[in-house]
Amino acid sequence: MGHLSELEVKGKSAKQAARKLATLSTTVKNQALVSMADALEGQWETILAANVIDIENGKEKGLSESLLDRLLLTQSRIQSMADGLRQIAELPDPIGEVLSTNYRPNGLEITKVRVPLGVIGIIYEARPNVTVDAAGLCLKTGNAVILRGGSEAIHSNTAIIKVIAQGAYDAGIPIGAFQLIETTDRQAVNDMLKLNQYLDVIIPRGGAGLIKTVVENSTVPVIETGTGICHTFVDESADLTMAQAIAYNAKVSRPGVCNSMETLLVHKKVADQFLPRMLSVYQQAGVELRGCPLTEKYHSAVKPASIQDWATEYSDFVLSIKVVADLDEALEHIAEYSTRHSEAIVTQDSNNAKRFQHEVDAAAVYVNASTRFTDGFEFGFGAEIGISTQKLHARGPMGLAELTSSKYTICGNGQIRE
Amino acid sequence: MGHLSELEVKGKSAKQAARKLATLSTTVKNQALVSMADALEGQWETILAANVIDIENGKEKGLSESLLDRLLLTQSRIQSMADGLRQIAELPDPIGEVLSTNYRPNGLEITKVRVPLGVIGIIYEARPNVTVDAAGLCLKTGNAVILRGGSEAIHSNTAIIKVIAQGAYDAGIPIGAFQLIETTDRQAVNDMLKLNQYLDVIIPRGGAGLIKTVVENSTVPVIETGTGICHTFVDESADLTMAQAIAYNAKVSRPGVCNSMETLLVHKKVADQFLPRMLSVYQQAGVELRGCPLTEKYHSAVKPASIQDWATEYSDFVLSIKVVADLDEALEHIAEYSTRHSEAIVTQDSNNAKRFQHEVDAAAVYVNASTRFTDGFEFGFGAEIGISTQKLHARGPMGLAELTSSKYTICGNGQIRE
Repeated sequence: MGHLSELEVKGKSAKQAARKLATLSTTVKNQALVSMADALEGQWETILAANVIDIENGKEKGLSESLLDRLLLTQSRIQSMADGLRQIAELPDPIGEVLSTNYRPNGLEITKVRVPLGVIGIIYEARPNVTVDAAGLCLKTGNAVILRGGSEAIHSNTAIIKVIAQGAYDAGIPIGAFQLIETTDRQAVNDMLKLNQYLDVIIPRGGAGLIKTVVENSTVPVIETGTGICHTFVDESADLTMAQAIAYNAKVSRPGVCNSMETLLVHKKVADQFLPRMLSVYQQAGVELRGCPLTEKYHSAVKPASIQDWATEYSDFVLSIKVVADLDEALEHIAEYSTRHSEAIVTQDSNNAKRFQHEVDAAAVYVNASTRFTDGFEFGFGAEIGISTQKLHARGPMGLAELTSSKYTICGNGQIRE
Repeated sequence: MGHLSELEVKGKSAKQAARKLATLSTTVKNQALVSMADALEGQWETILAANVIDIENGKEKGLSESLLDRLLLTQSRIQSMADGLRQIAELPDPIGEVLSTNYRPNGLEITKVRVPLGVIGIIYEARPNVTVDAAGLCLKTGNAVILRGGSEAIHSNTAIIKVIAQGAYDAGIPIGAFQLIETTDRQAVNDMLKLNQYLDVIIPRGGAGLIKTVVENSTVPVIETGTGICHTFVDESADLTMAQAIAYNAKVSRPGVCNSMETLLVHKKVADQFLPRMLSVYQQAGVELRGCPLTEKYHSAVKPASIQDWATEYSDFVLSIKVVADLDEALEHIAEYSTRHSEAIVTQDSNNAKRFQHEVDAAAVYVNASTRFTDGFEFGFGAEIGISTQKLHARGPMGLAELTSSKYTICGNGQIRE
């Protein structure tokens, strides 16, 4: 039960710090973010030395090349982390923003004010950059943070948090604001998911397995981020040159991310014109093609798609393709298989565009643009903590405002209720 | 496993209805609300006949008088339910509201629009009025609803839902929008808490035990409503006549509700002046008094308070009282024992008022007013689905807007991401 007491000690400490964090001025928080960046730059060698241990252990464990690459730190990657903190310092502070003011007939003045959430738990995989990013975003929004990164990154994370926390504490941030769970066994995650006494919210950042574990086991409120089975529907009236550019970009530009397309839907009236060329372009880009029986006719490289294909987030150079009779069939297919992340229509018909945006239930619904734009930076938020695919609290890319709550402050002069 | 299939059938039906509900016009929804009210008024005798069975069964089971009173329907109570539906029809429709519009340098137009949550699960106790209220609020906000009321009210709820659903369906609401779980065994609640495939959110309405069960077992996102250990702090500079009126109102006007006061904190410098008279007034009102050692000196009726008293929501004519050294001690006590519902200070010192509102972490923080005002109607929302004591999604009284989510609709002309 060593981790339980670690969680309790750190939970309590974070909660105490959160009370003070909520009242800090913007200036103090911004100076601390810069101080954290300075500390990272000044102590990059310490961090790299710790990272070497993680990398060596990772190689011994046989981690894949891509996992090792995520885990690897370099001086320039540490510089990017520091730059990220300075960018967060430059963003507007959402805390204290007046969201509404309401004067009641009895004279009460009711003001809704933006406040921190309190203590945020972040559970993530072996990506040390998330440690810095999450710490910076939580500090800017006046939240204490409890971090639980992948065990393969434990030495890197321990070194990073020591460096940035000291930088922040030197600049006047209450001690306890940054907590890293150092116990690497999995039970610590399960215990963290039940830490309702100290945690106001848990945000999982990572793959489908991690998110599922958190959603299914957490009694603390969760913001679900994630999986994207995104569709692009090429309508009868589409500009087919535009459609090709969008469909190519949505699949090929970065297939490993959640906003990339997994299924292409094509109106049967443009399939003859559109599909032969489009499928060739995909094939040249190395995309494996799995299609419905109608699609198979258009290109020899197309293998038959199973029902399972419509329900799969490939996150890879694989695409499923379906020819549909009309917009209604496209909407039905999306309603059935969408994970409600990002969906697009390519059309020149404004009625169909409107229907699609009105009827598709997803965080981001595009007309004539690539689903790849679903991203906090592309949306102009200046930051991103993840992309929420749930409907409660936050939906779509989450910026600073999504790390906040609100409270009502009410001023009276002796009002009592009848 | 009969209830499992009932849940699945009704979950699927609700989800299908939700797609159509999301696109309904305000006019259709409002006409349906009026049609539901008409149906209630027209068929009150059918509902009363069903209620008689529940009341008789309740008496046989030995339900308390107060539970039987909550369960009891009368023609005038049914009329109140119908009036409530007509009031909901008159409120502005939040769905479709544009929350923000954002033009990006690349030409993308990003609009954030208010949309329904989808399917809302409501789990509540044996109060048939909640059935009508929840159905009306969910319909107005374009949500399908799955209701699970206390088993003691099953005949009443079944009759009510049949009447109002028919009224709504006759007015053009998609069939399936209203679902009542008819299985009365407790396992059905547990299964409902895992119904992630069909439910977007669960809102428990009821006592602490029900809420705890839901929070601890639900994998569906929950909006926690509820428990209120509310404090009133009488500061050194308080207008003591005002303080007495507020402290009396906060405790005595309706002690069974969550926004009533449980603990009175008094600055030691005004205790001599304030407490003897205040305690007598409470005693005359039949309030049982439990105080700290200093409080005990001021009135013979005061029994010693234990630490457990500070942590108890009495929901009754019982009050704990503590004399504190200063504002800091009051803030510490509140931070330790508050359930973050409603907290009040009575003071003439504007700095102390500001500090209290800034530093107290609660849904509603009052200066010179009774905590009893924390209520959707008193806040001017025109409706209330409950009072959220969590920080995610909704905090404080929840009106129609709190039953909604948002989505981004993005319009482009061929944008792709580099």
